[in-house]
Amino acid sequence: MRVRIKGETKDFKTVWMEERIVHMIDQRLLPHRFEIIQLHDQRETAEAIRNMAVRGAGAIGVTAAYGIAQAALQAPTGSLEAFKAYVNEAAKLLKATRPTAVNLFHAVDRCLRVLEACETVEEGRERIVREAERIAEEDLEASRKIGEYGNALIRDGDGILTHCNAGALAFLDYGTALSPIRFAHRAGKRIRVFVDETRPRCQGARLTAWELLQEGIDHVVIVDNAAGYYMSRGEIQLVIVGADRIASNGDTANKIGTYEKAVLAKENGIPFYVAAPAMTFDLKARSGGDIPIEERGEEEVQWVWGVDEKGERRRVRITPENSPARNPAFDVTPAKYITAFITEKGIIYPPYPENIKKAFG
Amino acid sequence: MRVRIKGETKDFKTVWMEERIVHMIDQRLLPHRFEIIQLHDQRETAEAIRNMAVRGAGAIGVTAAYGIAQAALQAPTGSLEAFKAYVNEAAKLLKATRPTAVNLFHAVDRCLRVLEACETVEEGRERIVREAERIAEEDLEASRKIGEYGNALIRDGDGILTHCNAGALAFLDYGTALSPIRFAHRAGKRIRVFVDETRPRCQGARLTAWELLQEGIDHVVIVDNAAGYYMSRGEIQLVIVGADRIASNGDTANKIGTYEKAVLAKENGIPFYVAAPAMTFDLKARSGGDIPIEERGEEEVQWVWGVDEKGERRRVRITPENSPARNPAFDVTPAKYITAFITEKGIIYPPYPENIKKAFG
Repeated sequence: MRVRIKGETKDFKTVWMEERIVHMIDQRLLPHRFEIIQLHDQRETAEAIRNMAVRGAGAIGVTAAYGIAQAALQAPTGSLEAFKAYVNEAAKLLKATRPTAVNLFHAVDRCLRVLEACETVEEGRERIVREAERIAEEDLEASRKIGEYGNALIRDGDGILTHCNAGALAFLDYGTALSPIRFAHRAGKRIRVFVDETRPRCQGARLTAWELLQEGIDHVVIVDNAAGYYMSRGEIQLVIVGADRIASNGDTANKIGTYEKAVLAKENGIPFYVAAPAMTFDLKARSGGDIPIEERGEEEVQWVWGVDEKGERRRVRITPENSPARNPAFDVTPAKYITAFITEKGIIYPPYPENIKKAFG
Repeated sequence: MRVRIKGETKDFKTVWMEERIVHMIDQRLLPHRFEIIQLHDQRETAEAIRNMAVRGAGAIGVTAAYGIAQAALQAPTGSLEAFKAYVNEAAKLLKATRPTAVNLFHAVDRCLRVLEACETVEEGRERIVREAERIAEEDLEASRKIGEYGNALIRDGDGILTHCNAGALAFLDYGTALSPIRFAHRAGKRIRVFVDETRPRCQGARLTAWELLQEGIDHVVIVDNAAGYYMSRGEIQLVIVGADRIASNGDTANKIGTYEKAVLAKENGIPFYVAAPAMTFDLKARSGGDIPIEERGEEEVQWVWGVDEKGERRRVRITPENSPARNPAFDVTPAKYITAFITEKGIIYPPYPENIKKAFG
């Protein structure tokens, strides 16, 4: 992704590995400060996942794979058994960081399967590092393909609504929902993005707005309450969101509020697209009812994080001291509200149970 | 309304007049501090309207009427002409405070019509004070009636969604949307209120939550994104909101986000009620298209007000420094999404053009 630093534009990935060092954009500081942190071994890398310096499905998966690669490179040069034990220990450490991050488990397990098949320490090192790089390349390639396919759905002059951050920061680059938007912009289409702030954690206002600003894409931040208003006034021609998990019938779990925007899009005759890579489709879940919804702590609703007038990170409480809050992190959008899925295998239209199975079964 | 102060429960109105002094709850400090301010003459009262110590349609109207009464009581005891000139000067001052507040103009003009008909200073004083008290009583009576009629729509065990603050604080007492909820609670019905925080100004999280907390009504604050989620899970049985202006066909302008909740209620088969007194109906507006929508400054979206860990009032910025925002203050909910209007004249069901005219024409 392009990042503007002191008037210059540079290209960054969310996470990358150079020699044995993992580098990443510290997302906790965005949008108020841009900083790259360096993680020297698997322990520091695991800690960066745990403390959310990195977040987003794809980015977490790749980071965990890099953590395994760091372990392989730094393991003692003794017996094959000692080598495998050391890498397995690192895998345990990495898996314990974000227990619900499916991508993290997939990525670590892929590396461990390679490890199992190795017959020498040398081979193990080489193949695990290669597997981690392959996971990174696949992530990048999926996002790029989603951008290319999705770009075809965007016309010159369109207003596009997006919710939360399914951007480059959630993957290695491009993103899912934001990838078609980047490709459309780079192709010279004049577009305007309406960015839902996405309470409670404001990933839209903080991260999506920041990404669009870096890329010079015309955008406005709106409160989540205003999306329907702009739809009803004809200022929004399509909606693109990401997904956390998609059931085999097309029901889609994504950030809280996605369901509201989908219903409003349908009511206003506006296409509603979900952009997501293959790994987001959970063919074992038959419908949205099989997807558990995490309820997070009430303090995310009661307190809002930002920077004060002096640029210092700070939170303020908006509710009365004794008023309870409830904080569902996700909701499920029934498949009937979704016009199509934008994936690296192409665009999937209804009927979903058949066409999702055809693409990924 | 009931207010809990150091373990005791006391009854307050939003605004009241004792001798020549106007007293009001300072709403700028809520929910973090409860304070009554005293305004000694019409100048101080006008300033309290201007700086938003008092807000809300009904409350502003009554406050302005009290300001005229203060002027009448404090006018020089000279000629009738000098008396009228003095009171007219006060009217000008009060009208200049919030140029779009329709209630303020109505209330001031009612007092001025009384003034015009008076033949002595004595008579003017007495009749203007009486007119101001009558405006206050009518406000109170309308809210109470709305509560009684609306209570009949609430069943024991209901979950009720409300948006923004159409509570006691917006009128003298009871409120509009919150009045049926108070009456249901006082009648012993077990209810739970879902309070939309109502970005950008968070009147739900700040004021509605505070009112419900004082009254001991079971409630939870949710982000605006979560209302649809709770509807789809069957936890919300009805929605009650207030209104800023209602066209003769039933189209309703209210706080931004109201339209979204109305569409979601319809989609989920949940009744959607608008509670509002007669004066909110603008029979000259034929439809929502005749109601202008105010766009406010972008800083209300970019910055969030609250109190920090030490309880000090402060704001934090959530967006990147150069990302623009848009901030429509209201939206229009088309009449077809509204199950009924709860008014002091009873409950008005469709067909609206006919039944609204019948009630208020």
